[in-house]
Amino acid sequence: MCSKAGEKPTCMGAASVLYLVKIFKDYASKDQDKDHLSKAELKDLLKNEFSGLVDDSKPEDINKIMAALDHDMDGQVDIQEYMVTLCGLGIAIFEAGKGQCAKKK
Amino acid sequence: MCSKAGEKPTCMGAASVLYLVKIFKDYASKDQDKDHLSKAELKDLLKNEFSGLVDDSKPEDINKIMAALDHDMDGQVDIQEYMVTLCGLGIAIFEAGKGQCAKKK
Repeated sequence: MCSKAGEKPTCMGAASVLYLVKIFKDYASKDQDKDHLSKAELKDLLKNEFSGLVDDSKPEDINKIMAALDHDMDGQVDIQEYMVTLCGLGIAIFEAGKGQCAKKK
Repeated sequence: MCSKAGEKPTCMGAASVLYLVKIFKDYASKDQDKDHLSKAELKDLLKNEFSGLVDDSKPEDINKIMAALDHDMDGQVDIQEYMVTLCGLGIAIFEAGKGQCAKKK
């Protein structure tokens, strides 16, 4: 679905990808290193953008999530690690949805 | 950013991932095989959801895009292939954005 407002159509699929990149940039830019999310920046991002989808309510959750994202274990999250995790999240959501459909049959 | 309307907050980051999964399901469900995008379904999806971000104006473009997505070369696109491609698209957008910032300095 694309909205024709303005000179260039904005399609929701494209807008969704662009938004996911934008929030990485916004939160990663809070400190000097604009290309990586620190643990604190990741915590803010999850709370403000993924609450309800990712549970980080308990203090130790952020360490588990950080460990899951930080594949090269450098204590921060780069764009590749971030996007690969969102990719896994999307696949998990799709597979979970298929499971529910199978139960309904 | 989360909107508080309704019982559960909807955060834009989560909503973006959910939307990308939803459109895969919607377009993949147009034929009997609800778990895969055929070439025709992929063409519709690109035109309606990613125009402006993915150029498939020329007839041969869809074959190139299909070849790029269809990693196991079974003539269709599954959720893994779809999400991995969106992941690569997001990384490319981020890197391109960094290149433009470097030019401005």
